[in-house]
Amino acid sequence: MSIRKMIALHPGARPSPPLADAAHHLMYCAKMCLSCADSCMAEGHGAEHGDMTQCVRLCSDCSDICEATARLATRRTGDDQPMLRELLELCARMCEACAAECERHDHEHCKLCAQMCRECAADCRNAAASLAG
Amino acid sequence: MSIRKMIALHPGARPSPPLADAAHHLMYCAKMCLSCADSCMAEGHGAEHGDMTQCVRLCSDCSDICEATARLATRRTGDDQPMLRELLELCARMCEACAAECERHDHEHCKLCAQMCRECAADCRNAAASLAG
Amino acid sequence: MSIRKMIALHPGARPSPPLADAAHHLMYCAKMCLSCADSCMAEGHGAEHGDMTQCVRLCSDCSDICEATARLATRRTGDDQPMLRELLELCARMCEACAAECERHDHEHCKLCAQMCRECAADCRNAAASLAG
Amino acid sequence: MSIRKMIALHPGARPSPPLADAAHHLMYCAKMCLSCADSCMAEGHGAEHGDMTQCVRLCSDCSDICEATARLATRRTGDDQPMLRELLELCARMCEACAAECERHDHEHCKLCAQMCRECAADCRNAAASLAG
Repeated sequence: MSIRKMIALHPGARPSPPLADAAHHLMYCAKMCLSCADSCMAEGHGAEHGDMTQCVRLCSDCSDICEATARLATRRTGDDQPMLRELLELCARMCEACAAECERHDHEHCKLCAQMCRECAADCRNAAASLAG
Repeated sequence: MSIRKMIALHPGARPSPPLADAAHHLMYCAKMCLSCADSCMAEGHGAEHGDMTQCVRLCSDCSDICEATARLATRRTGDDQPMLRELLELCARMCEACAAECERHDHEHCKLCAQMCRECAADCRNAAASLAG
Repeated sequence: MSIRKMIALHPGARPSPPLADAAHHLMYCAKMCLSCADSCMAEGHGAEHGDMTQCVRLCSDCSDICEATARLATRRTGDDQPMLRELLELCARMCEACAAECERHDHEHCKLCAQMCRECAADCRNAAASLAG
Repeated sequence: MSIRKMIALHPGARPSPPLADAAHHLMYCAKMCLSCADSCMAEGHGAEHGDMTQCVRLCSDCSDICEATARLATRRTGDDQPMLRELLELCARMCEACAAECERHDHEHCKLCAQMCRECAADCRNAAASLAG
């Protein structure tokens, strides 16, 4: 199963390959961040790992923004490219802020989440650039 | 029942009144736009009202962005103000684009949706300004 | 502004008044529970208030289910009444479980959330009954 | 990247393998249905393919229910198993109703969506059974 293939079956204009890639990774990143926020909340707040409050916040916010961006990136009916481009760029900044916070902690879920966020940020920037021309 | 009152009961810092107002109206605008997109889809595509495709798209996108913005605006745990301010400003532009499209149609649901979007855009700008200082 | 009025402007069949009421309260309850989960997470876990972990979980789950139910209850295009009725009944049970947990804590946000959940559960049951005939 | 691996990194109890599989496929199905609804809306309504209105409705509703179910299935903090089991069973019925509608149309996106929905329904039933004991 592939979101990229599904989007390409829309009767309207084909998405740029970078946009289809971004739609796919945004879907993943939204759920990775949701899971990381849930895991961070359950970690102890001891000296070893530091306070996880800010990590819960950024992962939760990043999940919501990735989800909204994934939904706009998936739609092919009508045209909302200028807003989608702005949102992809904002989402890239959100993913980078979330990754920077996750990289401050040594939990395995934070490391995995940071890696996903870095990849997603790069995909969002590529997709935004593909819409520019 | 009031979302403003609920947010103010958080044990952390109180939200600025403009931010609490925005959280409230974003919640409404997300559902008004969802309903308008659903209504536009069901309208005939005759010469009288014009093609509703673009209106469905912008109302759907506006609903998703308002929903995400409402969620960030509601959270008080941790601090994500710079990203929230950016998102409020982007959301104001999205609401204005949606309002401009809805104002091109004479359906009662489009008129009501446009009015809600204009108010929500103003609230988002006020809330963003309240975070700036 | 009123969600009930907006839904009634759909060109298709009018919603039953109990269904329009439920759509309105579900929208509120989704955000009240999101805010309560966020507040519970920020409360201390001392002997005075007890562990808030389960309250965070139920408020988060209740928020997600109310949001999905609100979306289905708002749509008027096509017909999905049997599924909507099932979901309204499940959502009523979720709201009651969330209320019962919130009622175990003496935070003001928990009291307000419990009250909202009790009202929303009653609205969901009324709306489900209005679809039955 | 894997949602299953991420969920397993939670400091609390491990999810059953069927629940982790369901969380993964629910995430996909939510976006496949969102994309199919968007594609159906853009199809012509000619005699060849039939009216797509009901397909838009069921795909939209299925997307929302899969999204909510994915979120509950991903959370590991606290315990909400009875409600999760009920929701997985309801979601399986929703996926089957959506698949049955999509199977009435010969669009490639409908065929792919129906296949995804059938797989997701089976995963939801397996996950619900894994929670029962």
